[in-house]
Amino acid sequence: MAKNITPKEKDYSQWYLDVIRAAEMADYAPVRGCMVMRPTGYAIWEMVQKYFDDAFKETGHVNAAFPLLIPQSFLSKEAEHVEGFAPECAVVTHAGGEELEEPLIIRPTSETVIGHMYSKWVQSWRDLPILINQWCNVMRWEKRPRLFLRTSEFLWQEGHTAHATKEEAVEETLRMLEVYRQVMTDDLALPVIKGEKSEGERFPGADNTYTCETMMSDKKALQAGTSHFLGQNFAKAFDIQFQDKDGSMQYAYTTSWGVSTRLIGAIIMTHSDNDGLVLPPRIAPQKAVIVPISTSGEKLEKEIMPKAAELKASLCASLGGRFTTIDTNFHMRPGDRFFSHLQKGVPLRLELGEKEFAAERLRAVRRDTGGRIDIAWSDAATAVPALLDEIQKNLCGRALEFRRANTHRAESFEEFKEILEKEGGFVEAFFGGSKEEERAIKEVTGATPRCYPFENEGERGKCFYTGREGARKAIFAKAY
Amino acid sequence: MAKNITPKEKDYSQWYLDVIRAAEMADYAPVRGCMVMRPTGYAIWEMVQKYFDDAFKETGHVNAAFPLLIPQSFLSKEAEHVEGFAPECAVVTHAGGEELEEPLIIRPTSETVIGHMYSKWVQSWRDLPILINQWCNVMRWEKRPRLFLRTSEFLWQEGHTAHATKEEAVEETLRMLEVYRQVMTDDLALPVIKGEKSEGERFPGADNTYTCETMMSDKKALQAGTSHFLGQNFAKAFDIQFQDKDGSMQYAYTTSWGVSTRLIGAIIMTHSDNDGLVLPPRIAPQKAVIVPISTSGEKLEKEIMPKAAELKASLCASLGGRFTTIDTNFHMRPGDRFFSHLQKGVPLRLELGEKEFAAERLRAVRRDTGGRIDIAWSDAATAVPALLDEIQKNLCGRALEFRRANTHRAESFEEFKEILEKEGGFVEAFFGGSKEEERAIKEVTGATPRCYPFENEGERGKCFYTGREGARKAIFAKAY
Ligand SMILES: [Zn+2]
Ligand SMILES: [Zn+2]
Repeated sequence: MAKNITPKEKDYSQWYLDVIRAAEMADYAPVRGCMVMRPTGYAIWEMVQKYFDDAFKETGHVNAAFPLLIPQSFLSKEAEHVEGFAPECAVVTHAGGEELEEPLIIRPTSETVIGHMYSKWVQSWRDLPILINQWCNVMRWEKRPRLFLRTSEFLWQEGHTAHATKEEAVEETLRMLEVYRQVMTDDLALPVIKGEKSEGERFPGADNTYTCETMMSDKKALQAGTSHFLGQNFAKAFDIQFQDKDGSMQYAYTTSWGVSTRLIGAIIMTHSDNDGLVLPPRIAPQKAVIVPISTSGEKLEKEIMPKAAELKASLCASLGGRFTTIDTNFHMRPGDRFFSHLQKGVPLRLELGEKEFAAERLRAVRRDTGGRIDIAWSDAATAVPALLDEIQKNLCGRALEFRRANTHRAESFEEFKEILEKEGGFVEAFFGGSKEEERAIKEVTGATPRCYPFENEGERGKCFYTGREGARKAIFAKAY
Repeated sequence: MAKNITPKEKDYSQWYLDVIRAAEMADYAPVRGCMVMRPTGYAIWEMVQKYFDDAFKETGHVNAAFPLLIPQSFLSKEAEHVEGFAPECAVVTHAGGEELEEPLIIRPTSETVIGHMYSKWVQSWRDLPILINQWCNVMRWEKRPRLFLRTSEFLWQEGHTAHATKEEAVEETLRMLEVYRQVMTDDLALPVIKGEKSEGERFPGADNTYTCETMMSDKKALQAGTSHFLGQNFAKAFDIQFQDKDGSMQYAYTTSWGVSTRLIGAIIMTHSDNDGLVLPPRIAPQKAVIVPISTSGEKLEKEIMPKAAELKASLCASLGGRFTTIDTNFHMRPGDRFFSHLQKGVPLRLELGEKEFAAERLRAVRRDTGGRIDIAWSDAATAVPALLDEIQKNLCGRALEFRRANTHRAESFEEFKEILEKEGGFVEAFFGGSKEEERAIKEVTGATPRCYPFENEGERGKCFYTGREGARKAIFAKAY
């Protein structure tokens, strides 16, 4: 067990921070609540971005860049929206050496300013749909910051679309939720539950919010991404009107959807262990590291290093990128070298010592299981990618199993409380309560409705809290 | 000639804005001085980013993300730096519903906050070099904004490196300047001149600034990218110290280098014409557009469209991306469809009408020359990429020729003034003056020293302005 990492059983919060520090993923910035994403952490974000961005483009979306600063008055145009975001805003009052006439908000999200622009760009039904995404930074002032999970500034993508009909907008909202699910499951190895948010958890200004919820290794829930059907709320607030085919003027229907760097927190808390970071191979910027080892400088230089370079080139080619590196930290002991890669979550360590060299093979060590496999040099270009696929599958399967094992059903509030006290995890229960009742449950148990899951959506039953019949199935949990 | 575009000979500034508007590249944001990069403009930025980012990674750099907000006091730690940037700062005074104890600056550039972080990360010579880049938004309040060229918020990359020795840091500064030159010339088709900045044009806080300068089609200069050797200035201001191999404590040497979305302004002003945008194929997000044409709906549906789809797939495969589209604007007249692609700068239009269909070919029309070439379907996958390469080469060559034709030598201030008044363009002249003399020349002529070019660096002569002997060769021009 790593000395620089507090075991998660002892102190989960400290374990989380220790894993981040040991992998050099992030650091607090000098401004309270803000974060620096160090190269190891940022490279993961680049991988994550690539998968989502490809999926967005594959579904017909294009990227754009909207401004960082928003006039304060914009926020107030949508009543629920301003109520939700005003308390978290950072405000620019001076610029260019002068006091501004109107204070400017650093965007907490961009529905307002994008709504304003869309109203200029949309005239006719031919201008619709607009399918735009942006990757950017946003700011929501945070009193209790936590690296990746809650920081005053964070990086994210926000998709904003406008449509001629309600049907089309709802379809888009659900399409993007499914894109999220797919990338999260296939690439990030996060098995998520798709569902609809309850009234109390809805995005301020949305008619409906849909979510992908996932379980961390402390059994708490994390909202990994949300997709909002905004109805005509923002179209009316910002006057996004168009002339329809029949000549009549109509308000557009809009959607928005986002995932953020908090996904990196989710990856850490889903997969990592007491030795440090564990990364699913598909999002690992370094998928394999070759570790040449010898006490003989001559053997290293003349035999082992040239072979390592050759293997690296062949692996980079078969993996399609700069995904393999060679460890040249010869001033460190082999054990310490191994350990440094362990802590950075490199999925596969490929040891190349004198014994391996003589036998023309590599000794592969899996980060997820610690399992050791000998791979002949001649097989490496096919065996390594196959092994990485296996690790990917194992991590996702393990997380799914963990979630299933820690999901329980409750029929009454008594049972509900007992499960949360004794075991934690997800509680499945029929729920027919309102926003007020959500709040009451949270006050007693700390748990909130994470979603009404899409699976077996039609099922109805008696509400565990109010006793009302015809209630929908919900999942409750304590959440990040 | 396009009716929606003012000819550049008539009003160059208006022409520039008209080109941007016609191509839907950008729009002003509701906050004065800020810009929205619309999908057509942003997609070009994504292409530009890709080439630079690859080149940075190829030379051993990694990306990271530093915070948007910087404590006001940080700026003051480097005297020249604060003098240079304080007047342009946007200041956050309130956040989370409270007044802040210390105002925060939206980063105008990140030397200060990155210096602060490096001082925490660097202890020993083994921690060096640090080779980090970040892609982000920065803010410098702008009273006379101009899309892409001068906006209060802009997107850029800023590389920040720290080294154990001066030699290594200077080498890095020049390496990145060469990376800039290469990408600008090869990918953006901007033939740039590498050189050193004069004292008056140096980055605030740098020992030395190097630049890539390029000529716009109105003969004015544009600084396309700069690379700064910061000496130990920021290391001393932010205490970036390390224990050297001999055990002694040393200050690091740092560099920084950046290019921004202003490059898109440079691309527009270098290549475009009175019909609108012209894009070098390598940075065109849409390299070719197939335009199926027929008055017969049946022929379109049964013959022409399926063939267009087939050709598109084959071209996307041979071009390695979503670089070919099909125009389906059948409600528009063919001429208007052609025109819309012309205005968006698509390098190659591929017409597929009934005549072409019968002859099993495409009619290709080049955006750069208007030249028409018939291409057999069976040749398209090789002929189209070859044609795009030719267009790329032609645009770069044309720009180089234009710069050469508009560069003149001056031996005296009289000659200098005459050239600038009569012809404009670049003036080559030996210059041995100081910051004060630079200012005096600017006041009279509007021109500034763009750089001391690297080419024939050793040459010395008599200063055209002061008459001093032993002066270096400089290039002067009016600049954006
Ligand atoms: Zn149980
Ligand atoms: Zn001339």
